[in-house]
Amino acid sequence: MIKAMMKRTQEVLVVLVLALFYKAASMKPCSKPPQQLDGGDSCLSWRLAVEANNVRAWRTVPIQCLLYLETYMIGGQYERDVEFIVGEILSYVNGGIVLSEDGKDAWILDVDDTCLSNVLYYKGKRYGCDPYDPSGFRAWAMTGECPAIPAILGLFSKLVNSGFKVFLVTGRDEERLGQVTIENLHNQGFVDYERLILRTAAYKGQSAVAYKSAIRQQLVEEGYRIWGNVGDQWSDLQGDYLGNRTFKLPNPMYFVP
Amino acid sequence: MIKAMMKRTQEVLVVLVLALFYKAASMKPCSKPPQQLDGGDSCLSWRLAVEANNVRAWRTVPIQCLLYLETYMIGGQYERDVEFIVGEILSYVNGGIVLSEDGKDAWILDVDDTCLSNVLYYKGKRYGCDPYDPSGFRAWAMTGECPAIPAILGLFSKLVNSGFKVFLVTGRDEERLGQVTIENLHNQGFVDYERLILRTAAYKGQSAVAYKSAIRQQLVEEGYRIWGNVGDQWSDLQGDYLGNRTFKLPNPMYFVP
Repeated sequence: MIKAMMKRTQEVLVVLVLALFYKAASMKPCSKPPQQLDGGDSCLSWRLAVEANNVRAWRTVPIQCLLYLETYMIGGQYERDVEFIVGEILSYVNGGIVLSEDGKDAWILDVDDTCLSNVLYYKGKRYGCDPYDPSGFRAWAMTGECPAIPAILGLFSKLVNSGFKVFLVTGRDEERLGQVTIENLHNQGFVDYERLILRTAAYKGQSAVAYKSAIRQQLVEEGYRIWGNVGDQWSDLQGDYLGNRTFKLPNPMYFVP
Repeated sequence: MIKAMMKRTQEVLVVLVLALFYKAASMKPCSKPPQQLDGGDSCLSWRLAVEANNVRAWRTVPIQCLLYLETYMIGGQYERDVEFIVGEILSYVNGGIVLSEDGKDAWILDVDDTCLSNVLYYKGKRYGCDPYDPSGFRAWAMTGECPAIPAILGLFSKLVNSGFKVFLVTGRDEERLGQVTIENLHNQGFVDYERLILRTAAYKGQSAVAYKSAIRQQLVEEGYRIWGNVGDQWSDLQGDYLGNRTFKLPNPMYFVP
């Protein structure tokens, strides 16, 4: 109980320091949220609604939730949420999947904010309160220094070592970001995946749901059994050939249609 | 900020009082959770994972989350979460749906823990930490005194007044619970719905996904356009003929397959 009270006090202090910082900084106006939000508890409602796919096609994080979201993303709860889901995935993997000897047991992982974290980049975009900036994001991706999300790297290694074929499927543009994405994955420890599939010219302009469904269909037609499919966007987990189980990782910073 | 600190202190006190109460009461052992949970923050991870459909086919709430869940369900956050989702639904309804004159514009609402609340009953079942008790639940339903969830009653009235045909679709058994459910809905203000559809003998033993998909198919074949579909269970919102938008209300107390 004392520990919990200390923790609460610590949280309040973190929020206080952040509040002073943001008060001092000049704040640009942000997009008007569809609903009035008044801080912590209502931002938790917003985040829950985002993760349950009740809020769709949102362009920016409501400005009132900036401090809440910063605390969520870098204060430990985001990591705890990811680790909990990885625990669920491992329960499922260890709960009776029998791998065949044909080498066709597959998993699909998304890349951005699934394998590799963009939180450092989004910190500079006020955790999604600023609108999407395609060239800014491309410059970040071009550095090849997106860090691994530790729990997902652990999951990845476990899947590969268990004999699953892991396919990394990303909406990143193959021509411009293919080489740097390979290097980034490798320098973060994502090696021995079966295939990295990036968006080629043929899929340019398609929605993530259509593009990723088409890729999964090809894998199924090649004979792969998709046991699981992990992504931070609902558009990774909707459409066709979804796989036996899907797992939604948290991402309250941006929405990919 | 002072207000936030007062609120935190108040929350800590509520938890303290509840902890003393439960310490004093004799606690029955509950089902072992699949993952180790150690209170507040990890219970929030669990709840998020339930609402995002990452945890499935769970039988009971992890015992470590009992205090957390009681605070969530009756401390205000559950209500805030429901109200936020109703706000999203109304944004969608008011955001450009044009009703036709053929009277075939429809919405589907689930009944238990969508229109009518069972929180009072589940309080006696340790908010879902005790396993499902079919005869206990039937006795509760037979009282006909399940209270309306206020935000959903408001939504219901708005939909009916806007000209939508509202279908209430429930897994409750028609033979045993039909009459009392009609009375309960009426005494709580749910009047002027188009049809209340309960589970008949033909659907006995079917999963909720199969049963509700079949019902929705019939409605679509009658010519209805399902604009929205609201339920507290993922099994309300999966399968076929889902409707143009689905909305998942929170329910961390039980899971219906």
